[in-house]
Amino acid sequence: MSAFKHIGILGRLGNVQVVESVVALLELARARDIPVLVEDVVATALASVKCNIATRSQIGEQCDLVVVVGGDGSLLGAARSLAEYDVQVLGVNRGRLGFLTDIRPDDMEVKVSEVLDGEYSLAERFLLDVIVERDGVAVAHSHALNDAVVNSGGSARMISFDLYMNDLFVYSQDSDGLIVSTPTGSTAYSLSGGGPIMHPDLDAIVLVPMFPHTLSARPIVVGGNTEIKIIIGDCYPYVSCDGQIHLNAAPGDVVTIRKNTHSLKLIHPIGHNFYAACRDKLGWSGRLTEPTG
Amino acid sequence: MSAFKHIGILGRLGNVQVVESVVALLELARARDIPVLVEDVVATALASVKCNIATRSQIGEQCDLVVVVGGDGSLLGAARSLAEYDVQVLGVNRGRLGFLTDIRPDDMEVKVSEVLDGEYSLAERFLLDVIVERDGVAVAHSHALNDAVVNSGGSARMISFDLYMNDLFVYSQDSDGLIVSTPTGSTAYSLSGGGPIMHPDLDAIVLVPMFPHTLSARPIVVGGNTEIKIIIGDCYPYVSCDGQIHLNAAPGDVVTIRKNTHSLKLIHPIGHNFYAACRDKLGWSGRLTEPTG
Amino acid sequence: MSAFKHIGILGRLGNVQVVESVVALLELARARDIPVLVEDVVATALASVKCNIATRSQIGEQCDLVVVVGGDGSLLGAARSLAEYDVQVLGVNRGRLGFLTDIRPDDMEVKVSEVLDGEYSLAERFLLDVIVERDGVAVAHSHALNDAVVNSGGSARMISFDLYMNDLFVYSQDSDGLIVSTPTGSTAYSLSGGGPIMHPDLDAIVLVPMFPHTLSARPIVVGGNTEIKIIIGDCYPYVSCDGQIHLNAAPGDVVTIRKNTHSLKLIHPIGHNFYAACRDKLGWSGRLTEPTG
Amino acid sequence: MSAFKHIGILGRLGNVQVVESVVALLELARARDIPVLVEDVVATALASVKCNIATRSQIGEQCDLVVVVGGDGSLLGAARSLAEYDVQVLGVNRGRLGFLTDIRPDDMEVKVSEVLDGEYSLAERFLLDVIVERDGVAVAHSHALNDAVVNSGGSARMISFDLYMNDLFVYSQDSDGLIVSTPTGSTAYSLSGGGPIMHPDLDAIVLVPMFPHTLSARPIVVGGNTEIKIIIGDCYPYVSCDGQIHLNAAPGDVVTIRKNTHSLKLIHPIGHNFYAACRDKLGWSGRLTEPTG
Repeated sequence: MSAFKHIGILGRLGNVQVVESVVALLELARARDIPVLVEDVVATALASVKCNIATRSQIGEQCDLVVVVGGDGSLLGAARSLAEYDVQVLGVNRGRLGFLTDIRPDDMEVKVSEVLDGEYSLAERFLLDVIVERDGVAVAHSHALNDAVVNSGGSARMISFDLYMNDLFVYSQDSDGLIVSTPTGSTAYSLSGGGPIMHPDLDAIVLVPMFPHTLSARPIVVGGNTEIKIIIGDCYPYVSCDGQIHLNAAPGDVVTIRKNTHSLKLIHPIGHNFYAACRDKLGWSGRLTEPTG
Repeated sequence: MSAFKHIGILGRLGNVQVVESVVALLELARARDIPVLVEDVVATALASVKCNIATRSQIGEQCDLVVVVGGDGSLLGAARSLAEYDVQVLGVNRGRLGFLTDIRPDDMEVKVSEVLDGEYSLAERFLLDVIVERDGVAVAHSHALNDAVVNSGGSARMISFDLYMNDLFVYSQDSDGLIVSTPTGSTAYSLSGGGPIMHPDLDAIVLVPMFPHTLSARPIVVGGNTEIKIIIGDCYPYVSCDGQIHLNAAPGDVVTIRKNTHSLKLIHPIGHNFYAACRDKLGWSGRLTEPTG
Repeated sequence: MSAFKHIGILGRLGNVQVVESVVALLELARARDIPVLVEDVVATALASVKCNIATRSQIGEQCDLVVVVGGDGSLLGAARSLAEYDVQVLGVNRGRLGFLTDIRPDDMEVKVSEVLDGEYSLAERFLLDVIVERDGVAVAHSHALNDAVVNSGGSARMISFDLYMNDLFVYSQDSDGLIVSTPTGSTAYSLSGGGPIMHPDLDAIVLVPMFPHTLSARPIVVGGNTEIKIIIGDCYPYVSCDGQIHLNAAPGDVVTIRKNTHSLKLIHPIGHNFYAACRDKLGWSGRLTEPTG
Repeated sequence: MSAFKHIGILGRLGNVQVVESVVALLELARARDIPVLVEDVVATALASVKCNIATRSQIGEQCDLVVVVGGDGSLLGAARSLAEYDVQVLGVNRGRLGFLTDIRPDDMEVKVSEVLDGEYSLAERFLLDVIVERDGVAVAHSHALNDAVVNSGGSARMISFDLYMNDLFVYSQDSDGLIVSTPTGSTAYSLSGGGPIMHPDLDAIVLVPMFPHTLSARPIVVGGNTEIKIIIGDCYPYVSCDGQIHLNAAPGDVVTIRKNTHSLKLIHPIGHNFYAACRDKLGWSGRLTEPTG
């Protein structure tokens, strides 16, 4: 008996190693008689391998487990498109770094088998809704698992905006932009900008100013249910979601960022440990200087 | 009818302005027929002014409102000693700046009157328990409203320790120390060390490394119920609570920091706003443009 | 007798206040019988006011003093275009902030008169040469007084490059970009990115990584004669000079940044003081917290 | 023929590995007939090994090469005590990491032989003079190769002071202290506090505020000949030199820090490269792409 009844497979295109892992997954599932749907864009890379093909939304509707083969980037995309479905998501890492995809190819057979046997832990990771409104009408909308970034995105460096949280005015800022990150995203772009690392279970959002034109701007951590409103000044910034989706904003637009009602159900193999991942991926083991002697 | 039945007054000694404010408070209470207890150390500075004198613990037991006249430092001390009692605490600012004491002397009569009329908001601010254990036995214990700081505290700069959270190993660190701060403390010492500002309602704790001997150490924000254990290496650090209480630790000691079961019930006058306080006290710029939404 | 024989006037267009100041300057010069050349683009805004009109390069060739009316931005542009000429440059501030333009409109008559009387101090500020080479051939070239910034400049965040200094390999970096700043620029964009403030007389260049994808990257200060080479990876970054000129780079291009042989001769009024300017413009007077009490 | 006529040997006590290296050095010198003086405190650890014993100052007077066996800490102490003598100093690393001691024990024979053959590069590293004056009289004095740190050094966190550079007022600061670092020290304590890395050849000093009570304080880099004066406020800080010597200061004392007239003559083996040392010791990433230029 498997813990899951129907497996979906997504992956990053154009990577021989991804194909290898997908084939291995198909065999694992066949040996257990679990039906599998492979996303159409992945299936085209499989050539002669037989498999059932589906769109991403069909996979969301019919599967209860989705395995994403690729890097954190692939999983970000999967999370945004699958959040509204009742599926659990497992990442198999084929890229360099992975806070989200923490099964390495070498361990895949053992770890995925354990997951299919029901041996895993499940983490809920919330997503952000990102809405651009113009004259009271939503003109663009997307989701983000890691972060929404409002920034100039062009050769003119600076943007200006007013920030409100739960309808309270916070500040007006001239800067290169603002990163609004979930705990999941706190080890990604936000960290490069000086934001704190946040434990993934924390119900919080961090706002990290980008190259602010004042020395007093600092990262701010607020509750996960805070509604963030950014009123765009005299500029035309991008609003990037996970660095993958780019919305356009214009002067006077209101960018609203708040927790999505759906969350990602992320599977971790047994023994997963956030701090161990930090030690591994952030180089926490290194020491700078020797003791004075 | 007053919202409170018995008022206690604490204050910072040796300050003429504090005496002025205490006398004004006594008059306010007398006009409303509310009995008042003045802490013994304050009463000695009042000279000929008639008042009922009590110890701090008597005030905690008998009063339902305690007014602290002084700066944030005075309120920190009051919070630690009154946390276990069922009292609400109001700060009247006689110092320079205050995130906790947000009634200015000029507004005192009006604002305190409003509070006595029941017009105020109440905020719960959690405290930290700080325990030093040696060979399994607690050898020192205190509380902190802002922060617990483990640091060398002497001319030898460096300490070394192992950090655990909820019994999971996080890292070994050589540094000058570690700041463990509540949201309340996030605008104090932690901020000077590069920690994020945290909204006071957030149920979270931030750990800020002090001059770490590695470039990869960053502030970490974890849930408010996280139990933090610091196992002291070959050094004799201090453990400071709010910068006011100093415990001694020795090699092998375990310093445990976790949320106290009691919290401070802090009164804010009507109209209080955390972000406005940040703009005022941290020098954030005010509104540049007119909000359109 | 004036300290200068021929005055040129440059300014920022489209600003009524700039026109006011230019007219006042013309009168000051006329009263002393010093001939004046007004840049053509400024002259068009003067309408009926009589003056001698010239191009910027004619002004560079014929004048020994150039007064720039505007903000630091105007002076940056003037500095780049006048560096090769033997002129001294004085900035009259009509904008918000000014580390370079430190005469305020109210003081202009007094201060400019003092300068014309020879009462001033002269500071040499070096510029950077910025060259983009493709297959060994220079394809773009500009100057910078503040900074040269290599960055993605678009919606794709990351660039990658190899850094060499004096032909020694320094590191390979994935980041949003790299700021290369003079001491003059160290109080501008570089400071927003975490770079140190450098005294304007220092013969040094600072390199500040922008959102580096590693926790170990830090600002590096090197000698002013260091030749910096940035070999572009698989990306198409911009190279911005003072945020005003934008060169395009492509994979494999070599961006060379080194001290220009010409420097800006910047006039400061008597009593100018770099640290006083910092206190004024960076808000150094503010204090965060009160003493514990 | 050796490049040196008389070798002195210093080392860190209480380390078996140091003894090993000292014995190996004695043999190297004997094979080349170069006389050697071993510092008295080291000689006592050599037991039955025959050698000529001398004090540190005798070594300074009589030798032209001093080999320091230990870590960077040992070399800091040697540098301070030998600066006034005409000797060149070579560090052999027995500790974990070393920016100053860059010969590893395994390479010692080969590398030291090369040095004795005259194959090495010589770097001048300036030291700081640190003087504490009370009522115009010097009451304490020391040197520093890395840094002078004024800090509270005790359980009371904060100190206050006024900073002057070349007799110009810079700012008043409340903080935990101030690090004043040479380029040599810029990869040590100063780096932990957020200071920039400075190339060792740079003639500059960096001032890094420690936990400043204002958000606007940033590291400042000034010319190497700048005279820094710190006027102590109402506090009793330590002034630490290289973290090894601790002077006491009192309210009103003037701490003067300026370049020493003598500098350390530091020997680097052939092929030494500051940036390679940074990559190795700071965990900078190595080359990702092949340089094309």
